[in-house]
Amino acid sequence: MVSIYDQDLPQTDANYRVLSPLDFIERSAFVYPDYPALVYGPAQNGIKMNWSQLYARTRQLGSALSKAGIGKGDTVAVMLPNTPPMVQAHFGVPMCGAVLNTLNTRLDASTIAYMLDHGEARAVLVDSEFAAVMKEALSLRESKEPILVIDVVDTYFDTGAERIGSQTYEEFVDGGDPDYEWQLPANEWDAIALNYTSGTTGKPKGVVYHHRGAYLGALSNVLEWDMPKHAVYLWTLPMFHCNGWTFPWVIAARAGVNVCLRKVEAQAMVDNMVDYGVTHYCGAPIVHSLLVNSDEALKSRLPKGVSAMVAGAAPPATMIEGMERMGFVLTHVYGLTETYGPASVCAQHAPWNELGIQERAQRNARQGVRYHLQGAVQVLDPQTMQPVPADGQTMGEIMFRGNITMKGYLKNPEATQESLGAGWFHTGDLAVCEPDGYVRIKDRSKDIIISGGENISSIEIEDVMYRHPAVQAAAVVAQPDERWGEAPHVYVELRPGAEVTVEELRAHCRQYLAGFKIPRHFSFIELPKTATGKIQKFALRQQAKQAASD
Amino acid sequence: MVSIYDQDLPQTDANYRVLSPLDFIERSAFVYPDYPALVYGPAQNGIKMNWSQLYARTRQLGSALSKAGIGKGDTVAVMLPNTPPMVQAHFGVPMCGAVLNTLNTRLDASTIAYMLDHGEARAVLVDSEFAAVMKEALSLRESKEPILVIDVVDTYFDTGAERIGSQTYEEFVDGGDPDYEWQLPANEWDAIALNYTSGTTGKPKGVVYHHRGAYLGALSNVLEWDMPKHAVYLWTLPMFHCNGWTFPWVIAARAGVNVCLRKVEAQAMVDNMVDYGVTHYCGAPIVHSLLVNSDEALKSRLPKGVSAMVAGAAPPATMIEGMERMGFVLTHVYGLTETYGPASVCAQHAPWNELGIQERAQRNARQGVRYHLQGAVQVLDPQTMQPVPADGQTMGEIMFRGNITMKGYLKNPEATQESLGAGWFHTGDLAVCEPDGYVRIKDRSKDIIISGGENISSIEIEDVMYRHPAVQAAAVVAQPDERWGEAPHVYVELRPGAEVTVEELRAHCRQYLAGFKIPRHFSFIELPKTATGKIQKFALRQQAKQAASD
Repeated sequence: MVSIYDQDLPQTDANYRVLSPLDFIERSAFVYPDYPALVYGPAQNGIKMNWSQLYARTRQLGSALSKAGIGKGDTVAVMLPNTPPMVQAHFGVPMCGAVLNTLNTRLDASTIAYMLDHGEARAVLVDSEFAAVMKEALSLRESKEPILVIDVVDTYFDTGAERIGSQTYEEFVDGGDPDYEWQLPANEWDAIALNYTSGTTGKPKGVVYHHRGAYLGALSNVLEWDMPKHAVYLWTLPMFHCNGWTFPWVIAARAGVNVCLRKVEAQAMVDNMVDYGVTHYCGAPIVHSLLVNSDEALKSRLPKGVSAMVAGAAPPATMIEGMERMGFVLTHVYGLTETYGPASVCAQHAPWNELGIQERAQRNARQGVRYHLQGAVQVLDPQTMQPVPADGQTMGEIMFRGNITMKGYLKNPEATQESLGAGWFHTGDLAVCEPDGYVRIKDRSKDIIISGGENISSIEIEDVMYRHPAVQAAAVVAQPDERWGEAPHVYVELRPGAEVTVEELRAHCRQYLAGFKIPRHFSFIELPKTATGKIQKFALRQQAKQAASD
Repeated sequence: MVSIYDQDLPQTDANYRVLSPLDFIERSAFVYPDYPALVYGPAQNGIKMNWSQLYARTRQLGSALSKAGIGKGDTVAVMLPNTPPMVQAHFGVPMCGAVLNTLNTRLDASTIAYMLDHGEARAVLVDSEFAAVMKEALSLRESKEPILVIDVVDTYFDTGAERIGSQTYEEFVDGGDPDYEWQLPANEWDAIALNYTSGTTGKPKGVVYHHRGAYLGALSNVLEWDMPKHAVYLWTLPMFHCNGWTFPWVIAARAGVNVCLRKVEAQAMVDNMVDYGVTHYCGAPIVHSLLVNSDEALKSRLPKGVSAMVAGAAPPATMIEGMERMGFVLTHVYGLTETYGPASVCAQHAPWNELGIQERAQRNARQGVRYHLQGAVQVLDPQTMQPVPADGQTMGEIMFRGNITMKGYLKNPEATQESLGAGWFHTGDLAVCEPDGYVRIKDRSKDIIISGGENISSIEIEDVMYRHPAVQAAAVVAQPDERWGEAPHVYVELRPGAEVTVEELRAHCRQYLAGFKIPRHFSFIELPKTATGKIQKFALRQQAKQAASD
């Protein structure tokens, strides 16, 4: 028998609306049209937009894309630093129904070409700083489909680089309608963004975000931070990383201020913090360390009470301690590209304030508990899919479930099934569950090296090493690094009789890898293997750790 | 052609989870088990529960209901003041899949009987203060189905009233399992609550809330108020009103403190505010006026900076002004039972702080703009369904759309269709749209009188009047009232030659109406009518307004 509550109570336009972060900017533009939305450049005469202006410009972008024939399910790639067009793209692209693919600005041409091909990008917006590499990438594309190329020329950073597109961003957007009647997606499960991750294999995978997840992920960030309306947010975290952990949408939800920043440098960070009254910013540990390690004169200018969100495997306790001494309020979060950035948090407890700074930092360095609107984070035994005991000892794999998990990997049903099929998203990170239920990572994900906030796939480097004729076998692990957090350390076993120098191997890497992925450490050894011939990375990690502390 | 983003990217348990406010309490109990969740009674030796305890008790309630055979789609009615069992019911009842029907504690027996019948309640929890009226209501039920009756006996308010149920609440809950493995609903569109409203006709309509709306409505309240974690919330707003505007779920989302309060009196409010460090509370204007009009000694004890949320047609500017002078931070919201309570807000702008207190109060008294997570609030021409111009002059009807709108009216497809069918929820309230886009009510909903925060249907009173043999015609309108906000004024046209006194009409009303609905003002006149014979309520409202100021 059908329940009385399931009869004659249908969804209508009156009581059902798809969840989409596009709703946030519409509201802020309507309710707070005159409030500042975006600033960039010198405080005196830089770019300033209020919410009404920013909204109009994003509608114009959406309209221009639509006029160019781009619509539902099409991919628009962008290769941009944290400048105003990047903020605008987070709204304008999905407004026309398209999917935003933010490219890591440090990538090499062949990887970009792969992404443009795999994502079937119909347009690309490229900052002139990256025109050269993009030009090469475009020449390497396999697809014969036309692609619309737009040059984004930054007044404050015009290198005079070659124009590779058909028009500039400003010309293109000027052709759009600022009153463009954009539509919400028909389904909240529709894609909003595509983010390539090096993941756990060398081949980039396209992580697809949906509107529902972007909406709830953004709200989770607000809740986690108790972020008030009109917060002033400094863009130190690249927007090409998990869409800046959803913060373009967060700031729209709060009618806050986007303080754009092209380059993350201590001086620029402090200047912007002071000039614009910054209240919040995010970053990998290295970003925060920039401030901790800056000179005293600069530090003395820092405002107190700024909220800083840090993600990273294990933020060094010295960094946490240093930040605290400088008057920052630190929130430690954890997540992956597949979880829209942070999806767990080391939620703090008042009694911890009575602990010594080191013990407190030790607690605060954990991966913690599920985000407010995430369904769960747990350490499971990947064989049985049962939670490990909360004893702080038993290892398992960190897994997430809930709405703040990707739609899946684009055109990769096997990887999607492997990753989500068991009803939990497998992070690949090994951890324990402590007695208070908090997750603590014990071993980094087997294959990923996080260097300066960037994911580097060890397998990708290994693949390159294996291409060198002198190399018999190679294994790459993360070596702790004071500046970068981690750096790849390559252990090479040479073919019998072969000879090669470190310099030759580095030169070989440069042919295939983006600059930031080039390994700094090489060792020639006989690789430790298991009985079945599998390389024992665990042993290598210990060696690398030892090497780091030598 | 299917988009690449719609292929092989299915919803799984890993990336899709129904939205339900039950998720909030699970998280708070897990993350903040030792944080206070609920207090009630004397500060020294009253009831205190932390989130772990409150969660365990609600699971026990859910389990006990489940053991009693109550499950998905069943209705559980409660007639309770703002005491701990009322908070627990907001979680325990939906945990077993049932729907919570909170009954207005001021209702008369026949109306309660109607609601129990119409809602098909399988169980009822009743505070002993209301045992007598509930006993009568149970005897008036038409349904022959059994109903489980549970006596809620409050240690701090035991009147020694007759026990009418099979057991007490504490006995009943003790029989449940504190580790009950409750399930989220299968669908976020499933019902979570049933709230009867007198609406615009005399017959109560059952407004059905769904889990998705309750979840998003609660988050909207957090966002609107910038409500931080661990807020301390005083229960001055009855939880039987729109589930306390979703605040039982809001407080769970924030791991805050529920400060329970049986009776709303100035002394008790101030005591609780001081004793527990209250940071937030809600209420109809009359609740806030209690404080404004309390004696100076009491007022001097009030903490500063407490956030107060007020809803009401047009909060008197004197009340807003008085609250401000007392150091409260006031947020003015607007909504109806059909919109989970507040779904629009008079969002404040910093420049208003430079206005005089009266002009500011005038701006803050508006109904404002859509709630953060509501889709829209607009003043539409109900004929054309087009927005009226934002000229502050043209009248239209306030309409809402979005996720914070009811599922519909229970077992009333006609009313549901009429109310939601055009894609907007019709409030029945007449308003203008001001040049800044803010909604301002100009005329109260034609048929509703809001007296002391309670909805009174004028049609219901008119129906009663028409039953009196001396009455030819009757019309009831709201008369402004200093204490109650509004009070019903009955205009009666007698049959030729008939005679009746006001006292006789009042006695007649007492037979059919709850005490709070008994009209205070009667006038015998010839009713003003249009050419087609329709009573001109507009003219009567002017008379009533005049009568109030006399």
